[in-house]
Amino acid sequence: MPVRLNQTDSGFESAFAAFLETKREASPEVDKVVRDIIADVRARGDAALIELTQKFDRADLGAMGIAVTPDEIKAAYVQADAKTVEALRFARDRIESHHKRQMPKDDRYVDAIGVELGSRWTAVQSVGLYVPGGLASYPSSVLMNAIPARVAGVERIAMVVPATGGAINPLVLVAADMAGVTEIYRVGGAQAVAALAHGTETIEPVAKIVGPGNAYVAAAKRQVFGKVGIDMIAGPSEVLVVADSANDPDWIAADLIAQAEHGGGAQSILIADDAAFADAVAAAVDRQIAALPRPEHAEESWRDFGAIILVAKLDDALPLVDRIAAEHVELAFDEAEAFFARMRNAGAVFIGRHTPEVIGDYVGGSNHVLPTARSARFSSGLSVLDFVKRTSILKLGPEQLRQLAPAAIALANAEGLDGHGRSVAIRLNM
Amino acid sequence: MPVRLNQTDSGFESAFAAFLETKREASPEVDKVVRDIIADVRARGDAALIELTQKFDRADLGAMGIAVTPDEIKAAYVQADAKTVEALRFARDRIESHHKRQMPKDDRYVDAIGVELGSRWTAVQSVGLYVPGGLASYPSSVLMNAIPARVAGVERIAMVVPATGGAINPLVLVAADMAGVTEIYRVGGAQAVAALAHGTETIEPVAKIVGPGNAYVAAAKRQVFGKVGIDMIAGPSEVLVVADSANDPDWIAADLIAQAEHGGGAQSILIADDAAFADAVAAAVDRQIAALPRPEHAEESWRDFGAIILVAKLDDALPLVDRIAAEHVELAFDEAEAFFARMRNAGAVFIGRHTPEVIGDYVGGSNHVLPTARSARFSSGLSVLDFVKRTSILKLGPEQLRQLAPAAIALANAEGLDGHGRSVAIRLNM
Repeated sequence: MPVRLNQTDSGFESAFAAFLETKREASPEVDKVVRDIIADVRARGDAALIELTQKFDRADLGAMGIAVTPDEIKAAYVQADAKTVEALRFARDRIESHHKRQMPKDDRYVDAIGVELGSRWTAVQSVGLYVPGGLASYPSSVLMNAIPARVAGVERIAMVVPATGGAINPLVLVAADMAGVTEIYRVGGAQAVAALAHGTETIEPVAKIVGPGNAYVAAAKRQVFGKVGIDMIAGPSEVLVVADSANDPDWIAADLIAQAEHGGGAQSILIADDAAFADAVAAAVDRQIAALPRPEHAEESWRDFGAIILVAKLDDALPLVDRIAAEHVELAFDEAEAFFARMRNAGAVFIGRHTPEVIGDYVGGSNHVLPTARSARFSSGLSVLDFVKRTSILKLGPEQLRQLAPAAIALANAEGLDGHGRSVAIRLNM
Repeated sequence: MPVRLNQTDSGFESAFAAFLETKREASPEVDKVVRDIIADVRARGDAALIELTQKFDRADLGAMGIAVTPDEIKAAYVQADAKTVEALRFARDRIESHHKRQMPKDDRYVDAIGVELGSRWTAVQSVGLYVPGGLASYPSSVLMNAIPARVAGVERIAMVVPATGGAINPLVLVAADMAGVTEIYRVGGAQAVAALAHGTETIEPVAKIVGPGNAYVAAAKRQVFGKVGIDMIAGPSEVLVVADSANDPDWIAADLIAQAEHGGGAQSILIADDAAFADAVAAAVDRQIAALPRPEHAEESWRDFGAIILVAKLDDALPLVDRIAAEHVELAFDEAEAFFARMRNAGAVFIGRHTPEVIGDYVGGSNHVLPTARSARFSSGLSVLDFVKRTSILKLGPEQLRQLAPAAIALANAEGLDGHGRSVAIRLNM
């Protein structure tokens, strides 16, 4: 049964606080295994990749090669369903258009005393993209991770994806190709992350690794962090729907289920201002789940992590929404814009009754890689910014140095850094 | 003796590659100790802070209180050297002016088919700032960490600083006050990080923790990451000076020493196109270090990690500069701008003969918290962007939903997510 909370109940605050602390995923202890795998790949390169892939993915890379060939990509276009390929292209174009607006601008200026300052953005030179195998091998995720990198100007986008049992989903290859991935390797797990970070005979090392993965992949990313950059470690997905009683309960139920069906700790939360409406949604959820061809994940997530929170009026939901800081927030009521203007924490917001979150998963144009587990309080979804870095610029002439010198020397002396003071003073014969 | 490399030597590539891999700091195994401290602070709150502070900092917080009082801050202004306070104010104003230019702009637009998209930036609501105690208690670092947070609009900026032996550097309190820090607590170490992340009776939890610290602080930040955001884990500082023979060897030597005197693995590298000039710089470094009142750190860093790299012409240095990806890069030659235009990786660049890196440490206006240990390949210095987060926005009407639906449903079906497809289809009676 999903949690039921009522903001006007006396015990609400402690129950809500406990709800926020609910752990939704196990953290298996895999650090040692992962450390050994990374050391093995560093020591033996391709040979280790081939051996580990035989063991974990039951695929013979010695025979089929580590790198996916251009011919295989061509073949994937033929194997893939034509309508789906068309949908991928449609999504690609929309995602690309949106992300092109995210490129940060350089800044260079001269201040009042003639000091030149600036910031210059350049692309990360090479990026590795991890794509899970099996059921979670989503072509849409390939687009969402690769397109911002390409828009940023990354030259090398190296994708790794396990060929579980020897095969890779052709749609994943197609998505990679149309998103601008430059290299594809059929390796997965911690060994793939190790290869991207440290390089092997076949795989050149990259500067940053992005993309979702299981506990082994996440642990490997943490371990190679520093040697390379990494994106956020994504947790289970979540949606928070704020809805009034003017909604069709079936629509809202469908949105809650769409999130829950991800399973693995996915969370769906409804905040409503009408108990009868909330009951109607709950009933619709049960009815619709039962009608799903594969109900198990949705059933389990809704039962274990689902929540319905009643508030006296939707305005009262504002502090709750900010504390939940959900990955996805649907605002399905007339005053959604005014509510959003006062909100603070959300990975993405879906405004109005006709914007189901699923649109953002695929074809809205915005990115579906978003902060989970309340991390929208301090972090943002994936964007072009994740694939660029800034160099700050200073340029002084002798006159500017003279003007800044006294304060710089005073602070250097106060911090006991004599050499710092000297490097300024020596230029002014001080 | 610093490393000497010559790009035209046959063994250069392997020697340079080995140089890039040099480890400059020990990674003591403190994870277990830190885990216990965090658990203790979570369990016992203020009582744990008081006990741990008595043990590690020899300060009685039971008597003096955990929070620094407004009267103590007033007293600090009186105790501090007036000229240094003036220099801090000068630095504060310059840093603030520069960082005000970094605030990202919101974006909201309607695309060709009427879909509304956007990105909205909001400040992180509360930030914790770690300030080390003792010798590394730098008021300039307080400014560099707190000012971007205040410019971003962070409401709560809670500073923690150990009162080693009971005392806090008055300049640190003054810098905090003038930079807009809203709360100051005299705790340090892993216990301070734990208190910021999880809260105690006195310290409210924050959403993100920034600032440098020792191995315990770094380990604690890694452990609380996820619960809160953290900034980069800073490594030892480094400077790379690219200089031609028209420079005064004494100036360049002074810049190399300014970096080396940080000690603790700090690295100073010179790339020059003239062997006689390089020799003159090396001689000047030795001479100037000997003349320092506290030569030990500079001597050790220069000996253990210093490097002089000769190239036939400065243009040849370009790939080396990008591979070193230094925190600070000084370009001390006439064609510096053209060189910089072709460079890719650096935390900050200092252009021309009159821009010693030290100006950026204090009063240039740009931030001195910059990526170390080659991480400028994939990350940037601290900025206002570290204290804001982005919410992406989607808004469709029924007509837009109708247009996007077929591709969204096709992709949902291809990924086996029936509930996803349904949440779109149900709104269109499909």
